[in-house]
Amino acid sequence: MSESPFHVGRDQFHLAWDRAVEPVLSVASGSEVAFDALDASCGQITADSTVADLATLDFSRVDQVAGPIFIEGAEPGDTLEVELLDFTPGDWGWTAAIPGFGLLADEFPDPALRITRLGERIAEFLPGIRIPLAPFCGELGVAPAGEARSTIPPTELGGNMDTRHLTAGSTLWLPVAVPGALFSLGDGHAAQGDGEVCGTAIETSMRATVRLTVRRDVRVTAPEFRTAGPLGASTNTAGWYAADGVGPDLMKAARDATRRMIDRLGIEHGLAAIDAYLLLSVAGDLRISEIVDQPNWIVTAYCPRSIFG
Amino acid sequence: MSESPFHVGRDQFHLAWDRAVEPVLSVASGSEVAFDALDASCGQITADSTVADLATLDFSRVDQVAGPIFIEGAEPGDTLEVELLDFTPGDWGWTAAIPGFGLLADEFPDPALRITRLGERIAEFLPGIRIPLAPFCGELGVAPAGEARSTIPPTELGGNMDTRHLTAGSTLWLPVAVPGALFSLGDGHAAQGDGEVCGTAIETSMRATVRLTVRRDVRVTAPEFRTAGPLGASTNTAGWYAADGVGPDLMKAARDATRRMIDRLGIEHGLAAIDAYLLLSVAGDLRISEIVDQPNWIVTAYCPRSIFG
Repeated sequence: MSESPFHVGRDQFHLAWDRAVEPVLSVASGSEVAFDALDASCGQITADSTVADLATLDFSRVDQVAGPIFIEGAEPGDTLEVELLDFTPGDWGWTAAIPGFGLLADEFPDPALRITRLGERIAEFLPGIRIPLAPFCGELGVAPAGEARSTIPPTELGGNMDTRHLTAGSTLWLPVAVPGALFSLGDGHAAQGDGEVCGTAIETSMRATVRLTVRRDVRVTAPEFRTAGPLGASTNTAGWYAADGVGPDLMKAARDATRRMIDRLGIEHGLAAIDAYLLLSVAGDLRISEIVDQPNWIVTAYCPRSIFG
Repeated sequence: MSESPFHVGRDQFHLAWDRAVEPVLSVASGSEVAFDALDASCGQITADSTVADLATLDFSRVDQVAGPIFIEGAEPGDTLEVELLDFTPGDWGWTAAIPGFGLLADEFPDPALRITRLGERIAEFLPGIRIPLAPFCGELGVAPAGEARSTIPPTELGGNMDTRHLTAGSTLWLPVAVPGALFSLGDGHAAQGDGEVCGTAIETSMRATVRLTVRRDVRVTAPEFRTAGPLGASTNTAGWYAADGVGPDLMKAARDATRRMIDRLGIEHGLAAIDAYLLLSVAGDLRISEIVDQPNWIVTAYCPRSIFG
């Protein structure tokens, strides 16, 4: 990790995408900035937390983002290039099913919390189930021109993208909507699958280093990125389980596929349903297998076999 | 490829999933069957076809499937295990934009046809753009208990799944709905991306060998499968381009992501929009990046950089 002259501390966060938030730094285009970001609970969940602590979580403090950074010269219509240089997670993380939240919220009404010790490269998520770390930040975004926005849903300006392939080495482009762009990041994830089906990844504090450059020769209207290497290489080392959701509604198909993969993991590996649900959120992937054979589409839930023993 | 005692010829096809179709073979559970299957146009498109020939395509003959095979002992409620042993495509294939069909049908109203020579491992799809072959059958299914069904949409009994990861070495499980299961396959694809966005892959005739086994110890309610190895390993060898569709409707997000990746390929590689659309159908992937950050989901269109020169 290079030493960045600019640093954002863990207490320098805000709770909305809002042009009125005072920048914590103003930097020249091309500057490297290092962030020490709290986890998505804003430090409310600790390594000693139990499921009972979820009941008292203050949701108004969740999904805070560190920043914002004013990038000198950035103007509406420009593009902010975010080179993702390094992500170093903490030494533990948490994964939760939070009532009312997640793809199968109706079927998992009870809260659940799992604390995971993070090794340098691998986390043992459940006994004998080892997940390679592939750290990234779920939140990467810039401020909107109009009214302040929640940090929970992503938008065309980025935000809570929860996109697992935005790992170190990737380059992200975001549209600039206000002078200075006002870039922030947060929501450290040690590992996550495509979809983040239960609503949380392996959530962790994150030391993140990025380079921020104003580009006028690149135009984007919503997030685009380029990865440096293959996708999901750390789990894509052996075969996969797969279950299809088939029908005219992609959301329902995604739910069906996830539900059936949960059942499959119960049969094949004896996992309790809630454990399988959390596991798929941190290690399984949702892909759209076909979206053209009217009127039925297929969403497939994949789970890598390499993580099992 | 092993020599299978059972063989289905290219003239032994049918045009609906229908229990009334007479089986072409009756085999014991555990038998290997080799199919010589025509391409999805039922042989109407040839290596010399031009786009004008699309106008006279007889759609009532499209997406025929070879079979059906009666598997002795299979009963409703059982599971048919389909071990995918070998797929050998023909030496050429076609990819088309067909008016009214495909994810961006409204934006690509004109027909387009591309004929591609298939090498043993690689096809040059456009000048300098080389796509590794990863052959499979888009159609793999069994007959329904009730009324006959079209072969175009997939259902809980399989059919036109167009699932690119069902390559040789994979094992597929389908629910059995009628005595004998009545298994058929077709729609050979030399290469395809997750989504098959333009509606066609590199369509080709296919020699397919499968082993068909009745399982009573496995229960599925819709297709499930297990792959033997990593997913998409032939194109996942370097970095990827990615464009996000963000919003509350997964279908619209998938369209947005695909449209913007088409634009990106135009900028980066000078591709005409129609060429980029066909290219994404045969080599690009749609993944659901997140499906939990209410009310906005993200579908990401990925294109592998390894295919470019």
